[in-house]
Amino acid sequence: MKKILLVLLLPCTLSAQVKLKVELRPDIKDSIMLASIFKYEMTKGHVYKDLEYLSKKIGHRISGSEMAQKAVDWTYKLMKDYGFDTVYLQECMVPKWVRGKKESCVMHSQKLKDQMDMPILALGGSISTPENGILAEVVEITAWEQLAQLGEKGIKGKIVFYNRPFDNTLVSTFSAYGKAVDQRYAGAGRASKYGAIGMLVRSMTTAIDENPHTGGMAYNDSFPKIPGAAISTKSAEFLSKQLKNDPKLQVTMKMWCKFEPDVKSYNVIGELRGTEFPGEIITVGGHLDSWDVGEGSHDDGAGCIQSVEVLRIFKELGIKPKRTIRAVMFMNEENGGRGGDKYYELAVKLKEKHIAAIESDRGAFTPRGFTYDTIDVRVDKFMSWKKYFTPYMMDRFESGGSGADIGDLKKIGCFTIGYYPDPQRYFDLHHTQIDTFDKINKRELEMGAAAMAMLTWLLSEYGL
Amino acid sequence: MKKILLVLLLPCTLSAQVKLKVELRPDIKDSIMLASIFKYEMTKGHVYKDLEYLSKKIGHRISGSEMAQKAVDWTYKLMKDYGFDTVYLQECMVPKWVRGKKESCVMHSQKLKDQMDMPILALGGSISTPENGILAEVVEITAWEQLAQLGEKGIKGKIVFYNRPFDNTLVSTFSAYGKAVDQRYAGAGRASKYGAIGMLVRSMTTAIDENPHTGGMAYNDSFPKIPGAAISTKSAEFLSKQLKNDPKLQVTMKMWCKFEPDVKSYNVIGELRGTEFPGEIITVGGHLDSWDVGEGSHDDGAGCIQSVEVLRIFKELGIKPKRTIRAVMFMNEENGGRGGDKYYELAVKLKEKHIAAIESDRGAFTPRGFTYDTIDVRVDKFMSWKKYFTPYMMDRFESGGSGADIGDLKKIGCFTIGYYPDPQRYFDLHHTQIDTFDKINKRELEMGAAAMAMLTWLLSEYGL
Repeated sequence: MKKILLVLLLPCTLSAQVKLKVELRPDIKDSIMLASIFKYEMTKGHVYKDLEYLSKKIGHRISGSEMAQKAVDWTYKLMKDYGFDTVYLQECMVPKWVRGKKESCVMHSQKLKDQMDMPILALGGSISTPENGILAEVVEITAWEQLAQLGEKGIKGKIVFYNRPFDNTLVSTFSAYGKAVDQRYAGAGRASKYGAIGMLVRSMTTAIDENPHTGGMAYNDSFPKIPGAAISTKSAEFLSKQLKNDPKLQVTMKMWCKFEPDVKSYNVIGELRGTEFPGEIITVGGHLDSWDVGEGSHDDGAGCIQSVEVLRIFKELGIKPKRTIRAVMFMNEENGGRGGDKYYELAVKLKEKHIAAIESDRGAFTPRGFTYDTIDVRVDKFMSWKKYFTPYMMDRFESGGSGADIGDLKKIGCFTIGYYPDPQRYFDLHHTQIDTFDKINKRELEMGAAAMAMLTWLLSEYGL
Repeated sequence: MKKILLVLLLPCTLSAQVKLKVELRPDIKDSIMLASIFKYEMTKGHVYKDLEYLSKKIGHRISGSEMAQKAVDWTYKLMKDYGFDTVYLQECMVPKWVRGKKESCVMHSQKLKDQMDMPILALGGSISTPENGILAEVVEITAWEQLAQLGEKGIKGKIVFYNRPFDNTLVSTFSAYGKAVDQRYAGAGRASKYGAIGMLVRSMTTAIDENPHTGGMAYNDSFPKIPGAAISTKSAEFLSKQLKNDPKLQVTMKMWCKFEPDVKSYNVIGELRGTEFPGEIITVGGHLDSWDVGEGSHDDGAGCIQSVEVLRIFKELGIKPKRTIRAVMFMNEENGGRGGDKYYELAVKLKEKHIAAIESDRGAFTPRGFTYDTIDVRVDKFMSWKKYFTPYMMDRFESGGSGADIGDLKKIGCFTIGYYPDPQRYFDLHHTQIDTFDKINKRELEMGAAAMAMLTWLLSEYGL
């Protein structure tokens, strides 16, 4: 009851709070601090307007692009303007894959009056088709073993069409993604082994709609490279149905994508130096690159801007962190991970002590909590903080993934954490033209920034 | 581990499950049943297509309207077609308030080059303005005590403009609504006491946008009735700013709304009869009427269709409930509550034994759990079920509201429960033109129906 009253009477700024001279139980003091962070963000947050800028004034920003460089310049300036103690760049070379002209896919079938356009997106890393495209029959695959069963006889000269859908019965769409994305990533390489000349993959989403979802893929060096593209779930279902009517139907794919030489790019880093343990580093980050469609608002503009916001909240509330906190905009998460690699490489080289890292790369939806991933760090202290997050409905503290850019830090004793927003809508938008700023809910985005700042404060205050 | 394996091996239909002859711990058996309900809904749910019909083919359906009658007829037929044991109507008289021509509001200020249109929506129950509208100065009120402070001198002949915003620092937007809605409900009556001739109220939402949000209001019989309307939050902020520049600015309001005589309408009820305790009733419901804008998809088409779906899931999985379960589409929640009143009146008259009731009337977003409200029912058994909902991320079981249509049932010993979806986005849409079917996320809607069916199964199996 006493606690509740104090929270209700809570002053919104740290300066007011410092005047509170009663001797409070430490957990009550911590609750008050966390509430002041939350309330500040929900009333004076910048995260919505800053993400609007990144989305609308810069837009999508695939590694190596002009927009990616603009995003580097702008986030650097943003953190400078916010007055962080240090703002700097970490240089890294990144792949430059370009889509070229808009790709196309057309279905030809005797059972259809007209040929039919199906929207596709070339997969990141794919080669192009020849200038005139490829025209071939299609073979549908819903389980890997079908490739060997069909063999060269059934596959050679054809386009392999992977159509294993998301498992909608899984509560976490990330689990469903994890179980389906092997098709996109490895499908071209595995089909090429049997002589396929092209690859189409059902988009990685729970939604049934017209939006193709791009994403990374890799080849198998033992076999020829073949062009690979994602088709929308609606097209996938239609194509599957048509194949039952007309197994001889053909598809023409035309794609213009290619790699250009690697390009110099950067991680962008802002830092507030710790007052007591400056050598102990807490990283909070997202990835600055996106795919080359939409505006990269949920994936992962939100994570970047939320990370900047964490430090800005500390600055504006006058909180001096005991440990050093760093906002990191990682470059090239989507198709190479070179920024994350560079960050880890330098952490090792400079013998930095990374005690914890939080990545936000699961969209900007209502916060549900955090997942952690660690090799040898004890989780007791982290789990003891769960209670502080219950009143905010963000108290799922669970074992799980952290983030692609911070995963390696585990190896040097870092406790890695993934910010966990509600997962239901993320794959509706992921890697598509519709991942745009209008899909961002202001409150949900702000609550995420607040959640990250609250956890960062506990980490900076108490370590692990 | 054993439990996890069993859940993984889980058959999706009850018939398959019955073959499982191993002796399982009761809680494991229950987990398996709940998982089969969840999986069925996420793969074979009808709730999305049924809500699409209600939204798109019928649309908004204010009490007494032709569309409300269509909704009665259609949900009656729907439940008949689904083969529920009994489908019937409960007659009740409902108020018929009609908006008439589109209302308007225009700002005139010497500080503006042109007069300025501001979108408004008449509040439900408001009287109209005279044919030529009312033209008056505006006085802004952000706290009730300002009315008395200004008194007749400051208010008489003016339009009172209530502009106390939602408290964005509250995690639950329903709490913020609860703290602000007195302005909309009682504002006209209280302003009229001091001689105001009209009332405008800032829309009840956390969003800052152009959409006015209508909603119910009541008059104070001791004072003259004056017209009341909601203006969008953007207009409210602009009007407030302009008033500081030009306290003499004037506004013209024109409204054409009025009451017509009460109309006969109905609650629509479908029932599956309990096999062991048919006299013990579990109600699961939403309200069928909506405001007369948008499509009433979140408020509360979703709640109705989810309730129908609960019974349909039982039917399709071959589950024979031990206790009687009823899907109830309540009429007239928005502006009178006559359907809820009638349901309670008949429950008392017929001496029905209502053990529990669940209402879904908070939108169709990701399930977070349930809130309960009771006078004298013990909550132990209900709380012991929380654990079953944890794997589904819907395990907030808390004291709180239930629903406007079922609240009275508490008085006859019923345990009343409110389905609790994520609250962040609800008031973006509530009572507006943009509460339309495209705002419904299929998975979130289905997960809600599943959550309600899972809890209904536990209630029907074990009672309370």
